[in-house]
Amino acid sequence: MPELRKDPIVGRWVIIATERGKRSNDYRPAAPAPGVEPRFCAFCSGNEDKTPPEILAYRPEGSKPNSPGWRVRVIPNKFPALRIEGGLNREGEGIYDKMNGVGAHEVIIETPDHKQTLATLTDKQLEDVLWSFRDRILDLKKDKRFRFILLFKNYGEAAGATIEHGHSQLIALPIVPRNVLDELQGAKEYYNFKERCIFCDIIKQELTSKVRLVSENDHYICIAPYAARFPFETWILPKTHDPYFEDSQKYDFEALSRILSDTLKRQNKALKTPPYNFIIHSSPFNQKYHDEDYYHWHLEILPHVTHIAGFERGTGFYINPTPPEDAAKFLREVEMED
Amino acid sequence: MPELRKDPIVGRWVIIATERGKRSNDYRPAAPAPGVEPRFCAFCSGNEDKTPPEILAYRPEGSKPNSPGWRVRVIPNKFPALRIEGGLNREGEGIYDKMNGVGAHEVIIETPDHKQTLATLTDKQLEDVLWSFRDRILDLKKDKRFRFILLFKNYGEAAGATIEHGHSQLIALPIVPRNVLDELQGAKEYYNFKERCIFCDIIKQELTSKVRLVSENDHYICIAPYAARFPFETWILPKTHDPYFEDSQKYDFEALSRILSDTLKRQNKALKTPPYNFIIHSSPFNQKYHDEDYYHWHLEILPHVTHIAGFERGTGFYINPTPPEDAAKFLREVEMED
Repeated sequence: MPELRKDPIVGRWVIIATERGKRSNDYRPAAPAPGVEPRFCAFCSGNEDKTPPEILAYRPEGSKPNSPGWRVRVIPNKFPALRIEGGLNREGEGIYDKMNGVGAHEVIIETPDHKQTLATLTDKQLEDVLWSFRDRILDLKKDKRFRFILLFKNYGEAAGATIEHGHSQLIALPIVPRNVLDELQGAKEYYNFKERCIFCDIIKQELTSKVRLVSENDHYICIAPYAARFPFETWILPKTHDPYFEDSQKYDFEALSRILSDTLKRQNKALKTPPYNFIIHSSPFNQKYHDEDYYHWHLEILPHVTHIAGFERGTGFYINPTPPEDAAKFLREVEMED
Repeated sequence: MPELRKDPIVGRWVIIATERGKRSNDYRPAAPAPGVEPRFCAFCSGNEDKTPPEILAYRPEGSKPNSPGWRVRVIPNKFPALRIEGGLNREGEGIYDKMNGVGAHEVIIETPDHKQTLATLTDKQLEDVLWSFRDRILDLKKDKRFRFILLFKNYGEAAGATIEHGHSQLIALPIVPRNVLDELQGAKEYYNFKERCIFCDIIKQELTSKVRLVSENDHYICIAPYAARFPFETWILPKTHDPYFEDSQKYDFEALSRILSDTLKRQNKALKTPPYNFIIHSSPFNQKYHDEDYYHWHLEILPHVTHIAGFERGTGFYINPTPPEDAAKFLREVEMED
């Protein structure tokens, strides 16, 4: 059983994924693989029997589960960081605290076509991916053990992807991750002081000044954030206050699909298809926080263009060599095909 | 002038290093360089005139500054993330907060010999490096604008090193970085509750259980921490309570040099000389915190053996596939040469 362990000093929970069980040999540099094409991909259409059975798929009426024809397909992660079975069993170990690594770890296969990426999907296909995110969240929220669901994507090896075929991931957690807790706390303090949502205020200022604005449509804004940690970091936020990603309306997802596709295309043009992560930060649930007033869901896109994350990961202190105003201007002015 | 900008939501300060001014072209993948040996290294003995003038050097009595013969040499960073001149000029920008990027950014050249690394230096040479850290801290602490000095090392390109020749870095900051603030706060809460230092309690438990112990000597302990974020992460801590690295005694540095050298050698054996960072966390100064009772300086060593930092950097949530007990056992049992 994987363990969730709490750092006794800063209170940060970490998943110790015992069952993935890597030994030091696994980390030694391997000889470079010969330049062979991957012959087999379990995520491709036609290979449905090579993955765990699907949890959800958008497929034509009447077509059988785990058969071809699907547009988006959600499966359990074959090597999950967390296990769905069991109770939390919180306990101490001397001065330390731990609980069972209970949670869900799922994979959203974004397209049956190995050659497509999120940036090359049609807006309609991308909208399907967003709907699948929502449907899985709504289902997992029923499980009272969970407090937070992380939706994220690793694109490219340097960003942590181990499988090439386009996919996102979902982890349902019995705790709220640190960065979200920090945002909740900061947003709450601002709200207590101003009686306004800090995210709404950011959107207002960015729409006025326009220097960090990448793009906007009726429902969403894409900005390079003022204190961006990484070069070409961008955030997509709903223009109207909304704590929950999963409460978005149909027209929201249409508009979100358009701005996300546009942002990824701009990023690919500007940085020649860089590795990147995205993370959706949405309000926690099943707990006592009353954060609907001050928390505002958003999507953060973090391209990997520098190696400097090493030092930063030990300090939480970031040096960003590209001012977000420069990044936003560059992304705004990228020449887009029609 | 570089800027320090505060994230309006979580309050995290970021250095926007405007003068390093990278544009998107700088991040596009370059054609692989032909396999030529670097012909010239400004950090090598004999090339002292190719670096900014030295701030400090340990060299034979009577030898001239910026000439060969030194054992350790400290110079200003040629491309500093922060500038030493000027005032902080804190100001707002609408809802945002910023100040001038005032600080010091120095490079400690650990050896005149291009082929040596921290792990191959003699204990005596390594002790000289530690003394140079201390001497620079004592000097920079006099500057009342600074509150914290970060000492760190990037080894290997994946860990952020851009220069091969063995060197560490120092950044003096007008703010305390987030991870240190989190540690201070957590340690303070524990102290308020227990009237004991959390680090001292960790040391006691680790010396008793021994499962996460890598090594120890009279003055220091090396452990794989209970909630390690990264595979083979290790911490070196002084066994007796000490908030300030720079207050260490002569015999401390002798013992620290031995355990640091031993740990790096074990890490190199276990992981085949991996890229790594180390960071020294020591008490802030020139401020109102009274943290001497509860903060305990330590050195964190973070090897880079996985790519998963990508997702983690967006969430602060870590998945570690190697239990620290396994890592500690492996490092303990590495066969060392005499």
